[in-house]
Amino acid sequence: MSAYIIDGKVIAAQIREELKAEVANLKQKNIVPGLGVILVGADPASISYVTAKEKACEEIGIYSEDNRLPADTSEKDLLALVGRMNNNPKINGILVQLPLPKHIDEQKVLLAIDPAKDVDGFHPMNVGKMVVGDKAFLPCTPHGVVQMLLRTLGVNLDGAEVVIVGRSNIVGKPLANMLIQKSKTGNATVTVCHTRTKDIKAHTLRADIVIAAAGRPNTITADMVKDGAVVIDVGVNRIEDATKKSGFRLVGDCDFDAIKEKASAITPVPGGVGPMTITMLLYNTVESAKNANNLL
Amino acid sequence: MSAYIIDGKVIAAQIREELKAEVANLKQKNIVPGLGVILVGADPASISYVTAKEKACEEIGIYSEDNRLPADTSEKDLLALVGRMNNNPKINGILVQLPLPKHIDEQKVLLAIDPAKDVDGFHPMNVGKMVVGDKAFLPCTPHGVVQMLLRTLGVNLDGAEVVIVGRSNIVGKPLANMLIQKSKTGNATVTVCHTRTKDIKAHTLRADIVIAAAGRPNTITADMVKDGAVVIDVGVNRIEDATKKSGFRLVGDCDFDAIKEKASAITPVPGGVGPMTITMLLYNTVESAKNANNLL
Repeated sequence: MSAYIIDGKVIAAQIREELKAEVANLKQKNIVPGLGVILVGADPASISYVTAKEKACEEIGIYSEDNRLPADTSEKDLLALVGRMNNNPKINGILVQLPLPKHIDEQKVLLAIDPAKDVDGFHPMNVGKMVVGDKAFLPCTPHGVVQMLLRTLGVNLDGAEVVIVGRSNIVGKPLANMLIQKSKTGNATVTVCHTRTKDIKAHTLRADIVIAAAGRPNTITADMVKDGAVVIDVGVNRIEDATKKSGFRLVGDCDFDAIKEKASAITPVPGGVGPMTITMLLYNTVESAKNANNLL
Repeated sequence: MSAYIIDGKVIAAQIREELKAEVANLKQKNIVPGLGVILVGADPASISYVTAKEKACEEIGIYSEDNRLPADTSEKDLLALVGRMNNNPKINGILVQLPLPKHIDEQKVLLAIDPAKDVDGFHPMNVGKMVVGDKAFLPCTPHGVVQMLLRTLGVNLDGAEVVIVGRSNIVGKPLANMLIQKSKTGNATVTVCHTRTKDIKAHTLRADIVIAAAGRPNTITADMVKDGAVVIDVGVNRIEDATKKSGFRLVGDCDFDAIKEKASAITPVPGGVGPMTITMLLYNTVESAKNANNLL
């Protein structure tokens, strides 16, 4: 039996519809959630990300403030802009598109964002609050994974054996911390595997849910997955492909074709976790607007 | 063969000797690490903890400022005292003994402590930095566990299968985050089990290192431990004992007597993890003094 393909575009669209309704409600209270976007320089990938985020804002009714600064912008000027956005009540979320040019201290800029507007969820204050179970902006990609799991029929996090492969600051670590929380969106038994793990297969083989976030193609093969497991593939890797005009195609960390014959459900790449990330950024921005207006 | 008994008193004494030497060195540079201690009210257990901490400071040459406030101290006055300590260059660490009286918002007070002086390591800024692997004050009890493991011959964290039973904010969660770090003091494969875990025994039986932090006697029994495993017992539980003058005795979360015939090493309760906690508080205070003087 072939696995159910978890469609990230459909789940993301569903959440965006919910957000659209919520934004419409807020507007009746004269509240318009606002996202301040900062892009320094003209990296083509960054331009396309920023454009996609702003377009997504527009679609659900979030105001976005577009700031595209020249590559030679000074750290001081960038920090001043962040400071103005921190104090601007129209801005509920601040997004500084990474990477920043080399002459700017990225960490310093991210720490300058008011944690109450840190809709990326990368500020240590938000990371710390997430870990202890306080209200916090959850980082977008791992939060997207949690939402996919919660919104897929037949998936039960409570008591589930979850094995996460990868310990990055943007996926593996926050995901582990979310999933062990004593809460309806957590309560899983979580193992984090990584490059130093002696026998990753022994872990993934016992997992009800395997989450691949290693950043390497074929990290998870079919022999590593137990029958009926749920497999979430967070990896996005470019591999050469002469049949494509671009010369490459995107693959995840999992051997999708083989695993889908064994798993009960699996996310594809592209079209799986990917569409969730921007969606959860919109979610955080709306949450921030509600919080700023004492509606949480 | 009976397990090696990991003696927390000996390891703590060793670290305190190291700290004593370091404090002596700092004094030659006219730097005296200082700990500001705040106790509100007269809870007997809190008085004894605070007294032990201040005595430990004195023994290694840390200056401690003792502030014992009446139980009816206002939140405002307490926050003002914390504010003064934040600004006092003689104070490198601030310790607010918990619990605080009911009329004071504990969370508000802890958040008021400058993260740079949060030697308990409970401020979300420090928790978040710890998670992402930045320099941070590590919370004392889990850091004590890591130090015990690092300082016990034959224990190797790199690639070790570690199973933590318990997901508290003061032990289980921070310990998991420390042990998965890509670092010499981490690199373990970590599983966090808790009350919602379906089969804790299946996990502990495969662990090279079992860490019990559930807060319940006999959570870990001998049949749950594989031959030759290392067992760290963080539990401290009072159980009735008519043979004792006090009417109770302290036990950990593990069935010590039976497990010690199976494990390769085990910590006793009391005398295991316990003595490490205050020691790591002293360690953080010395680190803070070094940091304040640009010596890190």
